[in-house]
Amino acid sequence: MLETTADTKLQNVLSALDKALVDRNIDAALELFVDQCHWRDFLSFTWNLKTVAGKAEIRDMLDQCLDRVQPAAWQIDANETASHTDGVTEGFIQFDTAAAHGYGYVRLKDGKIWTLFTTMVDLKGYEEPNGFSRPLGARHGEHQGDPTWLEERETELAELGITTQPYVLIIGGGQGGIGLAARLRQHGVPALIVEKNERAGDSWRKRYKSLSLHDPIWYDHMPYIKFPDNWPVFSPKDKIADWLEMYAKVMELNFWGSTEAKHASYDETSKTWTVVVEREGREITLKPKQLVLATGMSAKPNVPDIAGQDVFAGIQQHSSEHPGPDTMVGKKVAVIGSNNSAHDICAALAEAGVDVTMIQRSSTHASRSKALMKHALGPLYSQQAVANGISTEKADLLFASIPYAVLPDVLRESTDAIREEDAEFYKQLEGTGFMLDFGPDGSGLFMKYLRRASGYYIGVGASQLIIDGKIKLASGSEIERLSADAVVLEDGREIAADVVIYATGYGSMNGWAADLISQEVADKVGKCWGIGSDTKKDPGPWEGEQRNMWKPTQQEGLWFHGGNLAQSRQYSHYVALQLKARMQGIPTPVYGLQETHHLG
Amino acid sequence: MLETTADTKLQNVLSALDKALVDRNIDAALELFVDQCHWRDFLSFTWNLKTVAGKAEIRDMLDQCLDRVQPAAWQIDANETASHTDGVTEGFIQFDTAAAHGYGYVRLKDGKIWTLFTTMVDLKGYEEPNGFSRPLGARHGEHQGDPTWLEERETELAELGITTQPYVLIIGGGQGGIGLAARLRQHGVPALIVEKNERAGDSWRKRYKSLSLHDPIWYDHMPYIKFPDNWPVFSPKDKIADWLEMYAKVMELNFWGSTEAKHASYDETSKTWTVVVEREGREITLKPKQLVLATGMSAKPNVPDIAGQDVFAGIQQHSSEHPGPDTMVGKKVAVIGSNNSAHDICAALAEAGVDVTMIQRSSTHASRSKALMKHALGPLYSQQAVANGISTEKADLLFASIPYAVLPDVLRESTDAIREEDAEFYKQLEGTGFMLDFGPDGSGLFMKYLRRASGYYIGVGASQLIIDGKIKLASGSEIERLSADAVVLEDGREIAADVVIYATGYGSMNGWAADLISQEVADKVGKCWGIGSDTKKDPGPWEGEQRNMWKPTQQEGLWFHGGNLAQSRQYSHYVALQLKARMQGIPTPVYGLQETHHLG
Repeated sequence: MLETTADTKLQNVLSALDKALVDRNIDAALELFVDQCHWRDFLSFTWNLKTVAGKAEIRDMLDQCLDRVQPAAWQIDANETASHTDGVTEGFIQFDTAAAHGYGYVRLKDGKIWTLFTTMVDLKGYEEPNGFSRPLGARHGEHQGDPTWLEERETELAELGITTQPYVLIIGGGQGGIGLAARLRQHGVPALIVEKNERAGDSWRKRYKSLSLHDPIWYDHMPYIKFPDNWPVFSPKDKIADWLEMYAKVMELNFWGSTEAKHASYDETSKTWTVVVEREGREITLKPKQLVLATGMSAKPNVPDIAGQDVFAGIQQHSSEHPGPDTMVGKKVAVIGSNNSAHDICAALAEAGVDVTMIQRSSTHASRSKALMKHALGPLYSQQAVANGISTEKADLLFASIPYAVLPDVLRESTDAIREEDAEFYKQLEGTGFMLDFGPDGSGLFMKYLRRASGYYIGVGASQLIIDGKIKLASGSEIERLSADAVVLEDGREIAADVVIYATGYGSMNGWAADLISQEVADKVGKCWGIGSDTKKDPGPWEGEQRNMWKPTQQEGLWFHGGNLAQSRQYSHYVALQLKARMQGIPTPVYGLQETHHLG
Repeated sequence: MLETTADTKLQNVLSALDKALVDRNIDAALELFVDQCHWRDFLSFTWNLKTVAGKAEIRDMLDQCLDRVQPAAWQIDANETASHTDGVTEGFIQFDTAAAHGYGYVRLKDGKIWTLFTTMVDLKGYEEPNGFSRPLGARHGEHQGDPTWLEERETELAELGITTQPYVLIIGGGQGGIGLAARLRQHGVPALIVEKNERAGDSWRKRYKSLSLHDPIWYDHMPYIKFPDNWPVFSPKDKIADWLEMYAKVMELNFWGSTEAKHASYDETSKTWTVVVEREGREITLKPKQLVLATGMSAKPNVPDIAGQDVFAGIQQHSSEHPGPDTMVGKKVAVIGSNNSAHDICAALAEAGVDVTMIQRSSTHASRSKALMKHALGPLYSQQAVANGISTEKADLLFASIPYAVLPDVLRESTDAIREEDAEFYKQLEGTGFMLDFGPDGSGLFMKYLRRASGYYIGVGASQLIIDGKIKLASGSEIERLSADAVVLEDGREIAADVVIYATGYGSMNGWAADLISQEVADKVGKCWGIGSDTKKDPGPWEGEQRNMWKPTQQEGLWFHGGNLAQSRQYSHYVALQLKARMQGIPTPVYGLQETHHLG
């Protein structure tokens, strides 16, 4: 008997799913799933980023969404082939709904659906103009006398926010705000970015001078314009800054630098925000319909309350204020914290010959960049992946197709491989007293990022400096207080210091809402980030998606956008679609709106 | 009998060529060519851009180059397949030489080589670092204390041209200079651009406001960073200007704006140029080894000598000085000339309600943009071509693979198709008295461009305005003189005018050498552009390649770079390789150095 090909097997299930859904036969549809199943949806069914797990949850979702969504035409992407490995048949799929084109990824176990990932590609009738549908540009024939591109652009820049109102106001002009604004422009959604720094890219320029991206370039592309092939693997901060500035310009973004958002309030009747901003010293009131906080997960510095901060005679600064080692030479520096920034700052100080001590209060995961590239990111985001035909967009979909409930199992494999490959390194590192962990369930770096966005170091050399004693380490004790010239630990050790750097991370993004709007709205929305894994800094209950990120919140018209470059790239697509649909008055009933369990 | 596949057929010839060349058996090699054969080489054999035609010329070239070049390993590009259509078998090929990797294209007729195109891809041991070999970027591990990217870049910007000397000085910061500088940077060749305008892109910004590129976007990409997919088909001038400015920034070019080159001289002993420039009012002397004039084929305005220019009471301006219609309303404008600029300027004036007359002194070719896209550029440069897998780089090679001697036959076909499709339009246009031609041999627009870079209009609406009478036309007579308020034609007609615009084109690029270096050097080098077709404005003898462009000239160390965006993109690769080889001291004996037949 001929073996059924993976394609046939997958298409058969898709056809059966197609028929069951067209027939509105939810029972028949559920028959196609294994018991331990997961359906992750980005907008196409739920107008939400939502994962439902198990047949009961899927039934509920279909009960509420199916009639409206009218899914149809499920098939394998004609340009792809399904594969079958280790008992799992999988492949890229496409489908249609009443309102949109859909795309996704499915995995079968025993011929039934184990994971289903469905996403919205575009809204029918509102596709982005590009490729074959790109604009003509020149004013030909009868349009020859129309305003030129420059004249139109100058008019827009002069009027938007002054005599006309943006539909979307984006607070924060880092990679998140910029990428989202680029998407919105392609959708024809009037958007304005306000950014407290002068120039696009300044949020990178102003950080400590040795900073480079810890993620490799293949993972970092912005939407629409890819970094060129000669771009370095780990981009220095100022180079990324220049790229962002260039990008904002050529993508024709409306970017107000030197502009601070002072206060925002929402009128539930007119469904309009009133946002007061100060632009180059002048107050301007904006009236957008939608407000996006793209202020960054890492933008509200978290400085711990430590006794004696008023007694300490030297310099205290948060890592976000640290300019680099140049002014620190000859001083004794204590860095409180042991995550990425702490490591980077310590390394740059040590290399400059500064006497630096890292104070590690709790255990930290460290992965060496090389091993991380090889075992974790490499298969999806690397030069080899590009050579294998895995575009960034495809890699994004493949990665997102693994539900967060399943992801730790997948990542534990690569974490184990890293652990094995770097066993000697880890032995040496722990030998220094460094408190090392691999995450609460051994799933390593990326789950820590998804759960708490902290607790790890992507190793680019600092661990070796700890091993070599060039960065001193004080670990295993909390801090009792600062004295005039030292950090005093609870176990009695005193770390002499002229400078204390708090590399102690950042607060939840809803803190921005508290500052800008009100504590009431911040509390209504609740904590941002984390998936409810019930691990340290990520309390339960289980959410299955990032809290409040890139999706509707409890506050109508308020959105949180951010994350690393990769997430900003990928999720800006879905934020833009949600905003576009609302601007066009397309119904967007949200299934499974985020509930609030934690205040921040 | 099984038919031989195109692949086998082609590979058999390549293998035979391989063997003949490895054996240094030129007779055997020539046996593989048809009598009417053409070998176009970009550097790989000749260190020149050179086409040899017929067996005698090929023999001479091989006689002089073969021992040194040591070509080997001729094969079909493994990622491509050969094709066989209308008696021609063709495909992409690769090969090796002692110094370089080669790539090309071959066409067989009757199983023998009809056209062979060979190019240099990279110099062995000096490949551009990109993709797998891109730099790391971040300072990891032992390099952590090194200067940051920003510090290195700031040092370079402060020192180059002041305390250190560029190996290459590029005069002119339009798309030509910028694209070349980007390539040189990737090759590690220190290069500096001096540009009289303040900012990169100003050479576009400062032109008449309705200007858009007449070539479609797929044809216009710069090296390394492609325009995004949403970019308009015909780019407005200011949008291109912004792109160039940002490109120069993110590609880290050394660009001195507001800098004018005053004088240059070459020391034949030290083989060094002395170039005096004025940078923001201050004289600086530069000492580059190589001098590239990228001042543009369209940069030295050509204003005809007409009697009465001193009598005319109104405004006279060259098209390059014309700002657009805004200040012309209510005036009578006479535009002398009937090429692209004349048409564009007339159209914008007519649309603004200005009384405008085009004075056509000689016949002009006009192709409508749509038909041109469909029949001429479309198969290589269009969204459909992209969808068909024809990348810009592939399109460039395919187009260049047709020797200039063969090209008119190919282009006559598409010109005939355009003529047929737009027959009614042409009838109407000629009905206005417009003197229309399709080139001296019916080969249409692109051959006019290659031969004389003038004599045509890429139709984007102005012809229709002529047909509709909105642009008045005075054709069929030379100009006798200007009176105080009119242009007086030889046939006695008087065109009343408050403004006369000379849309009369530009001089040969060696005029720049005369101004900057000396008339002697300009005369030694001779005319730039044109292929010696012995047609109007392109006198013989036959050259087979563009005179003096992108290749060694009679003046050591002096190069001319330019052309449209597509040529700048493609040929900058070869100019950069020539300069890189010279910097590295790799022998570059030039076969068939350009002789000088015309002064300018």
